[in-house]
Amino acid sequence: MSMNSRNIKLTIAYAGYNYHGWQFQPDYPTIQEEVEKAIKLLTRQDIKLNAASRTDAGVSALGQVVNFVLEDCPVPIEKFPKALNVFLPDQISIVEAQEVGLEFNARFDSLCKEYQYVIFTGKSKPVLDINHCWHFTYKLDIEAMQKAASLVVGTKDFKCFSSAGDHREETTRTIIRCAVEQKGDWFTVTVEGNSFLYNMVRNIVGTIVDIGRGKWPAEYMTEIIASKQRKFAGILAPAQGLCLNWIKYPTI
Amino acid sequence: MSMNSRNIKLTIAYAGYNYHGWQFQPDYPTIQEEVEKAIKLLTRQDIKLNAASRTDAGVSALGQVVNFVLEDCPVPIEKFPKALNVFLPDQISIVEAQEVGLEFNARFDSLCKEYQYVIFTGKSKPVLDINHCWHFTYKLDIEAMQKAASLVVGTKDFKCFSSAGDHREETTRTIIRCAVEQKGDWFTVTVEGNSFLYNMVRNIVGTIVDIGRGKWPAEYMTEIIASKQRKFAGILAPAQGLCLNWIKYPTI
Repeated sequence: MSMNSRNIKLTIAYAGYNYHGWQFQPDYPTIQEEVEKAIKLLTRQDIKLNAASRTDAGVSALGQVVNFVLEDCPVPIEKFPKALNVFLPDQISIVEAQEVGLEFNARFDSLCKEYQYVIFTGKSKPVLDINHCWHFTYKLDIEAMQKAASLVVGTKDFKCFSSAGDHREETTRTIIRCAVEQKGDWFTVTVEGNSFLYNMVRNIVGTIVDIGRGKWPAEYMTEIIASKQRKFAGILAPAQGLCLNWIKYPTI
Repeated sequence: MSMNSRNIKLTIAYAGYNYHGWQFQPDYPTIQEEVEKAIKLLTRQDIKLNAASRTDAGVSALGQVVNFVLEDCPVPIEKFPKALNVFLPDQISIVEAQEVGLEFNARFDSLCKEYQYVIFTGKSKPVLDINHCWHFTYKLDIEAMQKAASLVVGTKDFKCFSSAGDHREETTRTIIRCAVEQKGDWFTVTVEGNSFLYNMVRNIVGTIVDIGRGKWPAEYMTEIIASKQRKFAGILAPAQGLCLNWIKYPTI
């Protein structure tokens, strides 16, 4: 960092299909690589993005947030979104760019996030949204799903919804809102929380779907959470139905 | 046709991007070619599909209707959708298959059709729907658009909305419904009519958008229609925002 270092916060939207997730991997296309390449083309600087959420392969975002340190650069910050979008594919878009204090950290400063999961239960393939939803034709009981969702809300130990590979010792999280809505053959599950364990939203959605299909009564959700064991929870919902809607920060 | 000839009606959904429209063209991928290839793989028969609507390159459909004559075939008709979908890409789906009377003609027997056009006016690229909407950032006046849309309804000579290349002499059509709805940065224009001239819906939408942008007052719609000249109407809305929702037939 030099005297002219600036901390830049970007809000990014992307369609996750065709990408192996947010985080850079040497042999696969990732969102991080595309955005870092675009920034290099615009600023001639090799920067490294610090993202609030490492979304998995196939997961989309409307409001991913990242920050990076930019050295002297003649491009005004308000021109960043349009200029970066010139170098980005249709599936990735810079929504907003802001200069923030040097202490701002997109990953550690977030207050809460909202995810949305889309399910389609119609008979025919959802040709227009095939990359952005989970498609099956089981009948779902919306009331059971809404009841189950309400039982997820609160500050609880959510170890049961943490996939193998997550070794964080502290598994208590606060879910502020968990709501299921139906419109014809379309269902959405919206989950807002302070932070999330690995695969937590997809595990919650899979369990709500298992309840909606009649595998368990809605009240079983409480027992699953109390068990603190992944093996009692439902299936892992596929990645392509998930979208990171937004991330909130303290007023900067 | 033999004694065992059957007339099959298919309802088909497809995402139009990546395809050069419905109608077969030797050097470009088309929906018709994909569906005819799938039918050949399933039935071993070279058939020709007769479609209700020759949707343009980039246009999508949720309810395109076609018919074709099938000779002796051991596959039960109710298995056609699932079996054909095995041979079709994700962007094309057979929604329904029905055996109908030999006199049924998907093109000439349709009573009315509904199209929907989607517009996004947000600042950022609509990454999840980029192939299924028209994106621009002009502010739109929803009330002016709704007023203009209401002036399209009725039985009128719509020559002004017929693109060059349409040489049908009779240009009178009946528009049953033309409605504009807004939800945040998203707008939809829904048009229902008995039949349509070439590019008619896209020309109507382009004109409604020009009015929404303030180029003309809403009442000018009446003058445009009365002029019977394409040059007085608005721009041609791009293909990718358009979707053929459904087609109605007399009870078969």
